[in-house]
Amino acid sequence: MAFSPLVDELVESLRCLPGVGQKTAQRMAFHLLERGRSGGSRLSEALGKAMTGVRRCDRCQNFADTDLCGICENPQRTNGTICVVESPSDLLAIEQAGDYRGGYFVLMGHLSPIDGVGPEEIGIERLLDRIQQEGVSELILATNPTVEGEATAHYIADRLDGRGILITRLAHGIPVGGELGYVDGFTLTHAFRGRKPLSD
Amino acid sequence: MAFSPLVDELVESLRCLPGVGQKTAQRMAFHLLERGRSGGSRLSEALGKAMTGVRRCDRCQNFADTDLCGICENPQRTNGTICVVESPSDLLAIEQAGDYRGGYFVLMGHLSPIDGVGPEEIGIERLLDRIQQEGVSELILATNPTVEGEATAHYIADRLDGRGILITRLAHGIPVGGELGYVDGFTLTHAFRGRKPLSD
Ligand SMILES: [Zn+2]
Ligand SMILES: [Zn+2]
Repeated sequence: MAFSPLVDELVESLRCLPGVGQKTAQRMAFHLLERGRSGGSRLSEALGKAMTGVRRCDRCQNFADTDLCGICENPQRTNGTICVVESPSDLLAIEQAGDYRGGYFVLMGHLSPIDGVGPEEIGIERLLDRIQQEGVSELILATNPTVEGEATAHYIADRLDGRGILITRLAHGIPVGGELGYVDGFTLTHAFRGRKPLSD
Repeated sequence: MAFSPLVDELVESLRCLPGVGQKTAQRMAFHLLERGRSGGSRLSEALGKAMTGVRRCDRCQNFADTDLCGICENPQRTNGTICVVESPSDLLAIEQAGDYRGGYFVLMGHLSPIDGVGPEEIGIERLLDRIQQEGVSELILATNPTVEGEATAHYIADRLDGRGILITRLAHGIPVGGELGYVDGFTLTHAFRGRKPLSD
């Protein structure tokens, strides 16, 4: 290659980022070298620390720097409600909506027998233990509305059958501000089935 | 924020990359933490080394790890031809085309009096010194076909007037494989003016 070994290695290693191919990696490397060195050094340090230092929360499996994540450390968030999500990005989306004030459990995936992902791999036993210990009143199953997400939600619900815990699933329907013409058929069917009186 | 300080800092510092906003930075951070930690650590190291270690070639201003870049270190590339480009990405595009075997001079910009960028800032004096010392036979002005790029090319050509050096500029025309209907008017005008007999 035309450049120095250091530049080549930088371009090559930038490709570990999702959605970054050869061209984008080159553009990023040149940008940092030409006019973003302080940002690049900061990123180097942040990456190094995060890759070795970030672990999973002992209680909810969310990303954490210590035993417990920021949410589990907050006593106001341990109010007997657990929201089960597939990933930290789902948790973040809910947090950014700003309304939910309970705790979480992050599966880091969903059941997928074909890929060898069973209840143990996504921490369902740990979730059941926690529900047993903490005396949870409501479990919100916020897994994705996909075949695997639905199957995972039903599996968890089955395992908790008869324990007197309120188990809920997020409502499906037309996105707020969405146009009917752009909503897919499955969502529209769900929206019809879940229709409510206007006085509600 | 919902996450740990380490994750927050990682997301924040990923935004130094060009074209990466908050959402993309989050997606990148989660991807690395969930299933790309070895790649993330490698990137951390590559960034750290490149940000402190990469300098400019003493001869052509290209990125280099030592005094001279890979091209200037190659005696076969110092054949009396210098191709002047605005940036390392331009150099890379020419290298990847694979045909050119001479040397380069990387301006790292173009003349822009409004922004205070004069001949000194982009190394034109250094280029003229090098031409004097090395006895260059052809200077290819491959600055961009923009107002600034053209002005920079003309400035360099004027400075070398009467020195008996062949000064050339890359041909404008229809891209190979391009469709006429999608080519802009300026390019088409250049292509007409530069037309050649079919026997050529
Ligand atoms: Zn937690
Ligand atoms: Zn060089």
